[in-house]
Amino acid sequence: MSQHVPDNALASARAFAPATVANLGPGFDILGMAVTGIGDTVTAHLCDKPGTSVVKITGDGGKLPLDATRNTAAIAAECVRQQIRPDVGIELEIEKGLPLASGLGSSAASAAAGAVATNALLGNPLSQLELLSACLEAEATVSGRHADNVGPALLGGIVLVTGITPDCLFPLPIPDGLYFALVTPDVAVPTAQARAVLPKEVPFSKMVSQTKAVAQLMYALYSGNLDLLVSAMAEDGIIEPARQYLIPYFALARDTALAYGAKACIISGAGPTLCIVAPTAELAEKSGAAVQALYLAHGIGAIYRVAQVATRGAYAET
Amino acid sequence: MSQHVPDNALASARAFAPATVANLGPGFDILGMAVTGIGDTVTAHLCDKPGTSVVKITGDGGKLPLDATRNTAAIAAECVRQQIRPDVGIELEIEKGLPLASGLGSSAASAAAGAVATNALLGNPLSQLELLSACLEAEATVSGRHADNVGPALLGGIVLVTGITPDCLFPLPIPDGLYFALVTPDVAVPTAQARAVLPKEVPFSKMVSQTKAVAQLMYALYSGNLDLLVSAMAEDGIIEPARQYLIPYFALARDTALAYGAKACIISGAGPTLCIVAPTAELAEKSGAAVQALYLAHGIGAIYRVAQVATRGAYAET
Repeated sequence: MSQHVPDNALASARAFAPATVANLGPGFDILGMAVTGIGDTVTAHLCDKPGTSVVKITGDGGKLPLDATRNTAAIAAECVRQQIRPDVGIELEIEKGLPLASGLGSSAASAAAGAVATNALLGNPLSQLELLSACLEAEATVSGRHADNVGPALLGGIVLVTGITPDCLFPLPIPDGLYFALVTPDVAVPTAQARAVLPKEVPFSKMVSQTKAVAQLMYALYSGNLDLLVSAMAEDGIIEPARQYLIPYFALARDTALAYGAKACIISGAGPTLCIVAPTAELAEKSGAAVQALYLAHGIGAIYRVAQVATRGAYAET
Repeated sequence: MSQHVPDNALASARAFAPATVANLGPGFDILGMAVTGIGDTVTAHLCDKPGTSVVKITGDGGKLPLDATRNTAAIAAECVRQQIRPDVGIELEIEKGLPLASGLGSSAASAAAGAVATNALLGNPLSQLELLSACLEAEATVSGRHADNVGPALLGGIVLVTGITPDCLFPLPIPDGLYFALVTPDVAVPTAQARAVLPKEVPFSKMVSQTKAVAQLMYALYSGNLDLLVSAMAEDGIIEPARQYLIPYFALARDTALAYGAKACIISGAGPTLCIVAPTAELAEKSGAAVQALYLAHGIGAIYRVAQVATRGAYAET
């Protein structure tokens, strides 16, 4: 391979990757969705020193490591660099738009943005799906090798994830009229703890109900039936009952959201972000504001954002 | 209500209902499929004595009860009669095309044919979906109130069943190029026993895998991807492992079917019928014949039939 920078390489490339909501209720580890409005941005620069380094991180409150072996944007970027041009050096600037450990796929968004920026920097030889393994390598370092966030962060939309190879990502239809309020209370729910509270065994009847909810959710996406969709999303009888106690005032927040016109209120990924589902932007706004107010009234900081399904996954800005 | 026979009533009406394959692998209790070629036929006659009676049953080897309170065709017919014309009397002749307790929805087919024949006899005032409750009443008497056989027996095609009301039946797409060999070995697997061997609890990871298989199966139906479909059908890690020991030589039968070009071999409903899935009629034929030969070589009688998805549910012959 040439020791020179390729002709089609850029001096720098900047990429954005969206936040993602994993699980969608009963679809634990198998469903994920990209959402509009928030995400992480990574800028990659060519430099003389081979390897990948992180030169700047903003928006993380100083919490993320500059150490390239522990930073998901850098791990993904490094994997892509190794595949395309192991001879060149790359410096990354990371702008965190997503709160850390919030259940919005923060590590996956950084990984996807890092991979896409690096690919763009080096002339875009790899397809979006070919960046999956690099992103999974990054995810594996911080939260396990699973693709329910990375898949939709790369592809956009709603994605069925049945494994960790590109042929296991299946884009699903996106129904019209689906609005969300994403409420992130200022509490810590480490992914490890969220996994630890899950039951080791599940009653057979609950297993059947979970498959039923997932099947109904799939049917609802394909038929565009929002009533069926929200009822399926709310029918998780296994994960949410175990995890809701990790999120203060979860039941009250859900009741509040429903009282303000939302149709469902589920845990986004491992939490603590709540994904409130509403049929209009206005009702999403009202529900999100009401749940935020609930948290503030109990002395817990909270932010909320109204969002829709992001049809576009991670992309390089040109 | 008039004590006279309605003007649009017929002297007799005859209806056919197809065999059905429930579960389709991982879709325990929630998926069912009508298949071509075999089913039950019920003829209903008006008579002077109010009520519903069974006057003749053929094809059952004398095993089914003439007692109208224990015969699913009669129970369903009686429910329909009560809804439409409780003043008239109905006599039924039942032609069993389906082997009893074979996992092909025998009781559901009789119920659906009985309901449709009676509805036709009395001028067809009820829709197909409005016959569901009558059929469920019949199923409840013999095997529990569930609709995974009755749903597709009434509607045809492949049906998602999320409950026992008409709004819980969801027709799914039928992919092209789907052929089956239905092999019924001459062994008894009572539904009660097939239920008893199911585990009370399942490991969390197997629950997740089962939801994944169901989601993949749904995706495969909508995308028409037969490879994904058969791999999802074969991915039941909970029900089939528990039930396969009730069916002699199950593993050998499956291996034989696959060796002859089939893509999957699953248990139809509670068994003992095996549903072999193949990409062509020829391969279905060869696989079915090979598995039949396997059983015969081990001293167990067996029949097989090649089938496709039946797009039409129970219907009155005119």
